[in-house]
Amino acid sequence: MDTQNAAQATKMLSDLALIRSKAPLIHNITNYVAMNPTANALLAVGASPVMAQAIEEVDQMVSISSSLVLNIGTISVSWMESMIKAGEAALIKKIPIIFDPVGAGATDFRTIACNKIIDTCTPSIIRGNASEIMALNDNQTETKGVDSTASSDAALDAAKALALRTKAVVVISGETDYITDGTQVNSIPFGSTMMARVTGMGCTSSAIVGAFAAVNPNMLEAATNAMLIMGIAGQLAAQYSKGNGSLQVNFLDELFNFDDKTIARI
Amino acid sequence: MDTQNAAQATKMLSDLALIRSKAPLIHNITNYVAMNPTANALLAVGASPVMAQAIEEVDQMVSISSSLVLNIGTISVSWMESMIKAGEAALIKKIPIIFDPVGAGATDFRTIACNKIIDTCTPSIIRGNASEIMALNDNQTETKGVDSTASSDAALDAAKALALRTKAVVVISGETDYITDGTQVNSIPFGSTMMARVTGMGCTSSAIVGAFAAVNPNMLEAATNAMLIMGIAGQLAAQYSKGNGSLQVNFLDELFNFDDKTIARI
Amino acid sequence: MDTQNAAQATKMLSDLALIRSKAPLIHNITNYVAMNPTANALLAVGASPVMAQAIEEVDQMVSISSSLVLNIGTISVSWMESMIKAGEAALIKKIPIIFDPVGAGATDFRTIACNKIIDTCTPSIIRGNASEIMALNDNQTETKGVDSTASSDAALDAAKALALRTKAVVVISGETDYITDGTQVNSIPFGSTMMARVTGMGCTSSAIVGAFAAVNPNMLEAATNAMLIMGIAGQLAAQYSKGNGSLQVNFLDELFNFDDKTIARI
Repeated sequence: MDTQNAAQATKMLSDLALIRSKAPLIHNITNYVAMNPTANALLAVGASPVMAQAIEEVDQMVSISSSLVLNIGTISVSWMESMIKAGEAALIKKIPIIFDPVGAGATDFRTIACNKIIDTCTPSIIRGNASEIMALNDNQTETKGVDSTASSDAALDAAKALALRTKAVVVISGETDYITDGTQVNSIPFGSTMMARVTGMGCTSSAIVGAFAAVNPNMLEAATNAMLIMGIAGQLAAQYSKGNGSLQVNFLDELFNFDDKTIARI
Repeated sequence: MDTQNAAQATKMLSDLALIRSKAPLIHNITNYVAMNPTANALLAVGASPVMAQAIEEVDQMVSISSSLVLNIGTISVSWMESMIKAGEAALIKKIPIIFDPVGAGATDFRTIACNKIIDTCTPSIIRGNASEIMALNDNQTETKGVDSTASSDAALDAAKALALRTKAVVVISGETDYITDGTQVNSIPFGSTMMARVTGMGCTSSAIVGAFAAVNPNMLEAATNAMLIMGIAGQLAAQYSKGNGSLQVNFLDELFNFDDKTIARI
Repeated sequence: MDTQNAAQATKMLSDLALIRSKAPLIHNITNYVAMNPTANALLAVGASPVMAQAIEEVDQMVSISSSLVLNIGTISVSWMESMIKAGEAALIKKIPIIFDPVGAGATDFRTIACNKIIDTCTPSIIRGNASEIMALNDNQTETKGVDSTASSDAALDAAKALALRTKAVVVISGETDYITDGTQVNSIPFGSTMMARVTGMGCTSSAIVGAFAAVNPNMLEAATNAMLIMGIAGQLAAQYSKGNGSLQVNFLDELFNFDDKTIARI
């Protein structure tokens, strides 16, 4: 690990210690596919996940939460309304909103949903794969379903432009992860291509970003630290996983035990 | 294992044999996060799970089921209506209703939902963590999301009062599990703190209670036996699990193979 | 492996190579329980899963997909409408529709849903367990929940009749899997009884059928190849799995690494 990544890792461990001591409540309105692994990943790092989407309670659930994660993976009109209501409550409470635009660009419905969430909730952090970030930036249909067809490098300019326009920190997951506020760009060289073969791994990243944003008010730092722990845990777990089944399990175990000795193994 | 627990374990194995021979159908109306591990846990002990929530079919599904498990983890108004309809059908058919008040006290919506289910469905067994049982008892908001902030010991008086008021057997999951009908109190000293780091483990307990209640008409015994197998399987699995990822897997395997040799390992 | 199965396995590996090179988008409108393992299984074989059920977007999602998998495991009226709309779009686009009639016969609601999907979507392939296929054929309530109470052998005549009536290839999962177009019958002798103890394994079969149907225009061949890879991967994984927890994981790993060396191990 180079000097810069090592310095970042030290900061990350400090945030991780805060997550473990505070056990912040992370309110997720997310998709059916990723709910279970997302909740387990949050528990693995020491956060306390809650999944709740009824429009009658989302504002009250936000009122006791430390961050809000919105994910449109299996979006419907009624869930959209709950996300907007939760987002408005989070804005008033001034807790971070993390937005995961799953499948942005794949359908007009998703594009419209993304724009509405960005406009009304003004998320603190937007995390997607390259295709999604590029689609969000130019509002054109470029994605194929929910898996990226572009490299993260190709999406970096789009990420910067999106960050400047929305005032959100933008994260691109990929072979290299990029985290930018539109001017500064952090990059994370860790991870494994096998991670893209575990469903909901991107969604899990967004939830972990939510955990770090709950304890670190600097959104660029929080998102960077979250992607760093994801990348290191995923890369190490992939080294001894036979397939995507065992990777899903081993990845959680790595998060669960993550400490300075984990970093020394990279 | 002391004499009392050993005697209980013998009774539990007898119920487990019945579950495996009868494969009772357990009808679950539960939350999105826990559906998959809950179904796998029921299959692991030999029961036959069905998840069905459409209001058009819940009464007919109840008519072929041996117990009904209601869980409000990701409750909405329409799912609430289905739970009530299913509960009313279960009352007519006289099959046990197990109620899991996930996040009771976290929002008014959940508190109202809990009271409505208790009033209209009169569940045979209520299982929650300490915070949830305390919130159910005094109708005050005390919980932080869905994870308990109180110890099971602290909730025992609340559990007794709740049991006397609702005529349900009340189960508190925690470091020690308590099972009470308001007068008699059984306690289970097994388990592992790691279990709380696997999402849906409490929901799984409620489903396993449903399986035992399907074959044992004594609700106090059924709930005690269910918590006993949960505690032993979880404690043993935790001993060789590296984190919450592998615990989720190993726990199911322990349930799958559970027999007298399993008990000898505790 | 006998000569016929060996010849089939060679054809299957050829389809598998196509799936891995093309990564076809498989659009699933499926149940909450099976979404996560289904998506992971599709990723394991190299396909790209998308789960999307909003009526506003299903037709557009179909327009970029290579096959459509409809599964009524946790069906509701609104999801039913989305399935019909997606099915109609798939018919126009002429992509294969795979239908999984989970719990057919358990309730009138499911029987009506099945008939409506068969009538309006005219699926290319119908895959169910023996009870479900028999219930579909004679429209009588014979199932107990979602687990089969009949052997696949007993359902073969029903499968043939259903295939002739609906012009769909019909697949019965069981100890022996049967795949028929009403005249020709292929059988797969692989698999393990442990597979029925992993929730959503049948649903996963249907999704894998969707992946093979996306690359092979011969529906009888596609369905046969899908059941062959399911049976071999499941049988091999069961040999070293301690319970249904580890089988779920090991099964995915087998799919992930599946090649001619996998076949040599059977």
